[in-house]
Amino acid sequence: MNYVYQYALPPEITLGHYLLYRLRQLGVRTIFGLPAEFNMPLLDKIYTIPQMIWAGNTNELNAAYAADGYSRIKRMGCLITTFGVGELSAINGIAGAFAEHVGLVHVVGMPPMSAQVKQLLLHHTLGNGDFKVFHRLGSDVAEYTAILDDLETFAHEIDKSLIIAFTRQRPVYLGIPLNMIDVPVSSSLLNIPLDLSDCPRNEALENEFAAAVLNALYKSQSPAIIVDACVSRHDLIEETKQLVEATRFPVFCTPMGKGALDEQHQRFGGTFVGSMSSPEVREVVDFSDFILVVGALLSDFSTSSFHFSYKAKNTVLLFSNCARLKNATYPDLELKVAMEVLLAKLNPSLVQYRPQKVLDVIKPKLRLMNNVPLRQEWVWSQITRWFKPGDIVITETGTSAFGINQSRFPNRTRCISQALWGSVGYSVGACLGASFAAREEGSDPRVILFVGDGALQLTVQEISTMIRWGLKPIIFLMNNSGYTIDRLLHKKSNAGYHDIQAWDNLKILSTFGASNSDARKVKTVGDFLALIDDPDFAVNDKIKMCEVVLPPMDAPPALMDKLLVQERSESEEADQVESGSLRIGGDGNSFKRIKLSDRP
Amino acid sequence: MNYVYQYALPPEITLGHYLLYRLRQLGVRTIFGLPAEFNMPLLDKIYTIPQMIWAGNTNELNAAYAADGYSRIKRMGCLITTFGVGELSAINGIAGAFAEHVGLVHVVGMPPMSAQVKQLLLHHTLGNGDFKVFHRLGSDVAEYTAILDDLETFAHEIDKSLIIAFTRQRPVYLGIPLNMIDVPVSSSLLNIPLDLSDCPRNEALENEFAAAVLNALYKSQSPAIIVDACVSRHDLIEETKQLVEATRFPVFCTPMGKGALDEQHQRFGGTFVGSMSSPEVREVVDFSDFILVVGALLSDFSTSSFHFSYKAKNTVLLFSNCARLKNATYPDLELKVAMEVLLAKLNPSLVQYRPQKVLDVIKPKLRLMNNVPLRQEWVWSQITRWFKPGDIVITETGTSAFGINQSRFPNRTRCISQALWGSVGYSVGACLGASFAAREEGSDPRVILFVGDGALQLTVQEISTMIRWGLKPIIFLMNNSGYTIDRLLHKKSNAGYHDIQAWDNLKILSTFGASNSDARKVKTVGDFLALIDDPDFAVNDKIKMCEVVLPPMDAPPALMDKLLVQERSESEEADQVESGSLRIGGDGNSFKRIKLSDRP
Repeated sequence: MNYVYQYALPPEITLGHYLLYRLRQLGVRTIFGLPAEFNMPLLDKIYTIPQMIWAGNTNELNAAYAADGYSRIKRMGCLITTFGVGELSAINGIAGAFAEHVGLVHVVGMPPMSAQVKQLLLHHTLGNGDFKVFHRLGSDVAEYTAILDDLETFAHEIDKSLIIAFTRQRPVYLGIPLNMIDVPVSSSLLNIPLDLSDCPRNEALENEFAAAVLNALYKSQSPAIIVDACVSRHDLIEETKQLVEATRFPVFCTPMGKGALDEQHQRFGGTFVGSMSSPEVREVVDFSDFILVVGALLSDFSTSSFHFSYKAKNTVLLFSNCARLKNATYPDLELKVAMEVLLAKLNPSLVQYRPQKVLDVIKPKLRLMNNVPLRQEWVWSQITRWFKPGDIVITETGTSAFGINQSRFPNRTRCISQALWGSVGYSVGACLGASFAAREEGSDPRVILFVGDGALQLTVQEISTMIRWGLKPIIFLMNNSGYTIDRLLHKKSNAGYHDIQAWDNLKILSTFGASNSDARKVKTVGDFLALIDDPDFAVNDKIKMCEVVLPPMDAPPALMDKLLVQERSESEEADQVESGSLRIGGDGNSFKRIKLSDRP
Repeated sequence: MNYVYQYALPPEITLGHYLLYRLRQLGVRTIFGLPAEFNMPLLDKIYTIPQMIWAGNTNELNAAYAADGYSRIKRMGCLITTFGVGELSAINGIAGAFAEHVGLVHVVGMPPMSAQVKQLLLHHTLGNGDFKVFHRLGSDVAEYTAILDDLETFAHEIDKSLIIAFTRQRPVYLGIPLNMIDVPVSSSLLNIPLDLSDCPRNEALENEFAAAVLNALYKSQSPAIIVDACVSRHDLIEETKQLVEATRFPVFCTPMGKGALDEQHQRFGGTFVGSMSSPEVREVVDFSDFILVVGALLSDFSTSSFHFSYKAKNTVLLFSNCARLKNATYPDLELKVAMEVLLAKLNPSLVQYRPQKVLDVIKPKLRLMNNVPLRQEWVWSQITRWFKPGDIVITETGTSAFGINQSRFPNRTRCISQALWGSVGYSVGACLGASFAAREEGSDPRVILFVGDGALQLTVQEISTMIRWGLKPIIFLMNNSGYTIDRLLHKKSNAGYHDIQAWDNLKILSTFGASNSDARKVKTVGDFLALIDDPDFAVNDKIKMCEVVLPPMDAPPALMDKLLVQERSESEEADQVESGSLRIGGDGNSFKRIKLSDRP
């Protein structure tokens, strides 16, 4: 990307223009958010920037999700909200970007400074004259914050904020008082490129680190490379591939790293999901003597559904801005630098590992009768062959985030999911952002969303924004009548809180004003095969939704196996259920637990 | 209300039960929120409490709005969310309750303490092991917060939190670690009533205050009483009426106080909206020599659309927990106490004011031809006669919040709007909460929502929850093709950000699964008259939506007049527009400014 962008501009522009041109230099062409009294003069300026548009979301949380999804494709996103009500509505989305290392600028339109100084303006405040409370709240989920209230420093603050958001891949918070939007600034400042490469180097530390890592790497007999979230965020896809090819180590991805590596590569072994990994993956990863995690976000975490940690004696974690080897931390070692040094010093002839064939973890496809109702395991095994190179695949927290790990992507498939923060409904907003980003690429790749019926309800209206802009995602609505992942996690109860209001899902697109759309429903194996064999459905020529009807207590195999193992150890007095059938209570809202033998 | 509620309970119950029974004692029968891994064991217990239900919202912000709307009718509300993602999604709604003095308990399900202490569980965290960040964020918008992690104190903390939420009418934050939900507590503690009356008294201060206020009150020649937000929040409707009748002063309400006073009362003079009040109201209020504001939330505020302040030489402000007379503040003087003392000491024979007839500010109804397209001014003047005693009327920030001030309510009409915090979309969530509260009243009053098409898009899915529970609000969807209030506030631009995606609004109810509903559209005077004369439509026997089609640049007269005055002073080179018509750009999306002469 060429981060310098020359414009024919008058010698003086406004602060608002300066910010927007700087964003444009970083590749940002779509801005998300909602209009309000304190940001409208800034929004006016978007319409004057070449190839830049204001998306106009349906609410601020969705806007934050959209900016996040956009940034996961373009490495930078921006949303504009308003003081108080707007910024607080977005804060959960910003926190998600912070947790998952996504580069964003959150611009907040603030009351004019005169009102703040005089404490005059109390609309959208807590009524106590405290204008700083929202900035304070925003600081906890931002890598950097600035209020542009100083004529001497605002251009510097804008540059600094954008550099931090971009290089560290984290959200920053920029507050702009209304009266500052139109203050003049010299346009010649735009000719000074943003310095995006300034990571401090420490040669002694780098050498020591590389020697220690390579020493362990060369001696390893059963190694593994793991690709985690920050590989795609920090654009290290090519370097990671070089490392795999030089060492011939088997390589796996985490759920957050999925899509960063060519999954057709002969050394690719599948997805590592801790205790929920397939037996083939666990066998390699859990028993390896050396693990190199590239772009690590976390070394371990646990939820009530699974545990995730690396067990190798020699574990190297390359975080975004530091590294760890066993218990030693190497501070201030940027991921890009660490990879560069390792690749430069690696001597493949010293690698002792004798390459083993990496097993194909994708299960052979089951042949089922056309009239068999759909089950998650089968659907996820089939969808793999429907993916195409270049696809952007978005999955929601819940069963689809687990299901997707069963699939093997074609090369250059990109994957978006919010696996760590896990805010339900994220995927719909992210799909909007990714759809804008996809359209900005010349190749107009497909954007494919998998979202459950429960999650969809949180953010459904953002589909309206997709329709408004003629975006053409293909939406698989996995309808299992409620919050199935919660049903599985909290099995002791058949409580009504797992259920949701049933919607007439096929009407959603037309209700939101789509005049050219495709809405279908599939219930059986035959329906689904017809769908994925239909060349018309595979083309992203209009917005499409396919409702996939699934049983309420069904889930992808990884999740089911895990829970069934737990269940068997907890209780042997399980209900007697006939093999191959799923017993559902008479009202459709209370569910019996099912056993392994029930699965086809 | 009888705040002691006897249950036949075992000697030991759980912490979860204790909290829920205490809420039940305060009249809370509906709990809002979403299920998640850290709160599900608490939700299970809701199903065991007599006459208590879990509403199950579509997202957390909507849940907060719903709990707020519920509390505005019942004086107490509760929502349950989950750690991180859930609580942050709700925070804007909690901030609104804080700003507008609404009593709420926000219960947050947290990870078990063992995970927090070991920093093991990192799902739904920012990835930095900081488990306290969300509690810290919540503290800024709560009157009190507690984490129930101590076996010795949790029952005390629950009681204290609920007392604060109820008596101060503000949100409180209660974090419950997962492992604490089932710890035992003696059920006999429930027999000790919550002490809701503990306001400290200071007789000297009260006497001094009453003497000073009454001295000014007796001498006043042109007084006014203003009813503000805290009158209904702190249940002082009866006392306020007594004060009006004893003094015979003219009485007005603020937009936030609307509904607290019988508007059919002969001393009621209309709504005071600062610089946007009608001339009749401004003449009395702005030129009065004594103003007594009961239940004041603010003494003044300004937005870009209007200014609000009291100009009388002698202004008495009775806030919820202190009072002010001119520049003197009387601290720790509770609203209820202040009113009690004033009423006790008031001697009506000393009042010098000679009652003037209070003008009827409701304009005579215009007679228009049936085929005339609808305009805001006319619609708001007509709707008054459609209201019934007992109605709960909810208006959205935007044109409807201004329009409603044109109406005169029947007695016992209650009004909900978020006039100070002004979070767009609030009204839809509040309508859900108010509908539950209404159903809990034996009389099943009508709940009537006025929401713009722009605002509806932010929170539309909460209509699904209304349908799920068979609630029967009557929704007027004021469709003016976008954010009209923003168009009026920021007239210089005809920018696209004021426009929204057009929805097929009449399909909304059926898309969300309504099998028994009524959806209509009105465009003309004749349509509207037929609607409000249709006895079937007036009955709340099913959920109803009426789309009211209005011109994009139209607004209620108060807003129009204000803006037109501004405009005339700004520019005389206005477009030549034919009288009585509204020029709209060819594509329907760009709008010419209109002049006063355009209005019918």
